[in-house]
Amino acid sequence: MKVFIAGLGLIGGSLALALRDRSLADEIVGFDASEEHAAEAVRLGIVDRTADFAEGVAAADLTVIATPVDTVPMLAVKALNRVGDRQTVMDVGSLKAELCEVVSMHARRGRFVAAHPMWGTEYSGPSAACHGAFEGRSVVLCDTELSDGDAVAAVESIFGALGSPVVRMRAEEHDLHAAYVSHISHVTSFALALTVLEKEREERHIFDLAGGGFESTVRLAKSAASTWVPILTGNKYNVLDVLREHIHQLQVIRRMIERDDAEGLRAAISRANTIRRIIR
Amino acid sequence: MKVFIAGLGLIGGSLALALRDRSLADEIVGFDASEEHAAEAVRLGIVDRTADFAEGVAAADLTVIATPVDTVPMLAVKALNRVGDRQTVMDVGSLKAELCEVVSMHARRGRFVAAHPMWGTEYSGPSAACHGAFEGRSVVLCDTELSDGDAVAAVESIFGALGSPVVRMRAEEHDLHAAYVSHISHVTSFALALTVLEKEREERHIFDLAGGGFESTVRLAKSAASTWVPILTGNKYNVLDVLREHIHQLQVIRRMIERDDAEGLRAAISRANTIRRIIR
Repeated sequence: MKVFIAGLGLIGGSLALALRDRSLADEIVGFDASEEHAAEAVRLGIVDRTADFAEGVAAADLTVIATPVDTVPMLAVKALNRVGDRQTVMDVGSLKAELCEVVSMHARRGRFVAAHPMWGTEYSGPSAACHGAFEGRSVVLCDTELSDGDAVAAVESIFGALGSPVVRMRAEEHDLHAAYVSHISHVTSFALALTVLEKEREERHIFDLAGGGFESTVRLAKSAASTWVPILTGNKYNVLDVLREHIHQLQVIRRMIERDDAEGLRAAISRANTIRRIIR
Repeated sequence: MKVFIAGLGLIGGSLALALRDRSLADEIVGFDASEEHAAEAVRLGIVDRTADFAEGVAAADLTVIATPVDTVPMLAVKALNRVGDRQTVMDVGSLKAELCEVVSMHARRGRFVAAHPMWGTEYSGPSAACHGAFEGRSVVLCDTELSDGDAVAAVESIFGALGSPVVRMRAEEHDLHAAYVSHISHVTSFALALTVLEKEREERHIFDLAGGGFESTVRLAKSAASTWVPILTGNKYNVLDVLREHIHQLQVIRRMIERDDAEGLRAAISRANTIRRIIR
């Protein structure tokens, strides 16, 4: 299988490594809007060579769009404009509703598969690509009834080989759930980093005192603006909805602390503890 | 050295294991208000045997108080009431201001060392005790000028052997910084868990979609109410101060998303990214 990957950052790069590690691709050709990143991806052995977008798509059995989410819909259309009946185009982005709407009436809609592997780290660029990514993490496929059966089967067999269980849902449903389990965590983490940077003027103390708990809640604050600004604005209404609830929960806890309401805090923490059922 | 540990949970239990692993104690005697936990600690080989509090303190070279923070000041006084010139009492709790005030005028104040190892996990009880805890994590010693030199030296040599760099600060200063780098992370995590549990009615989707980012920001929400209610209420004013700033930061981000202020979001995220300097 010849694979073309547009966007050679964390996700595109890690997917290239995974395909190579499982011998799923005969050749991996890459494209990145940053010439520096493209050259770095070749140097790191992530892709065999680079090509321009139109040429890369035309020659590939599978095109993967792994660019920031605000650029995915137009690239998906441009890729579909260039593929035939046996070629497949897949994205791996964090947002699906607008994307699936944009491609919905394309004459080659059937060749498109909307995929979101639920994996990432706080790092970006080709040098952030890791071996073993995606393993054990779900991949969401959206609106698969609009994709040709063989295209979906090709994508499913790749993620099956990578050890990623497939979950199917509607694009709108995906964006709602992604706001809850991914986007809000990033907003919280950015805000927590800003809080500490704002209030803790003596940075030495953060260094000295930060334990594992702080690191784990603030880790995502290292994530790139180029990735996250388009996600937060693109998923605006869902993110605002969750954010409103999150601020409300913090205000409830704040009032309990203000009133020395130990009983209320105990009940709230015990309820929060039930998250154990979900993230063992 | 004979060590007596009161409170055989995550911290007390892990300290017992660390002392044993480094051959720093000839005998480790334990006490826990829960008979079940005390018996479990013996069964797990965390302590050699149990004793009642008064007896345990009297016979020990070093008494460690590792109980929930609301019980530490009284136990510190009771321990100091029972020690002589060559015995040391240390606590390992998350709050220091009230504790240091309570013991400040005790006739044996010099035998007390206020210590806070900056390590923990979201689990509790004797079964949560881990080998290798504390290594590479700082330990804060507070108000050491009020402790006898030999008592501080004894505590420093223990943490030196465990691989924990020692940081000294005033008790009030400790509680302020602890609010920033530890307590707020727990509040955020509890609130995030409650947000998701409140809004995400279809729990199956949390299971399916939760990636590493969600797990890392919500992990602390599994922490026990019995540990955290006393910390949050005991450090009330510092926690409220940080919480107010954190809610403010979230509201600023919310307004930027509402207004599609990509430029503002980019600037905020880039500033949040500077946390990289601190938690590499």
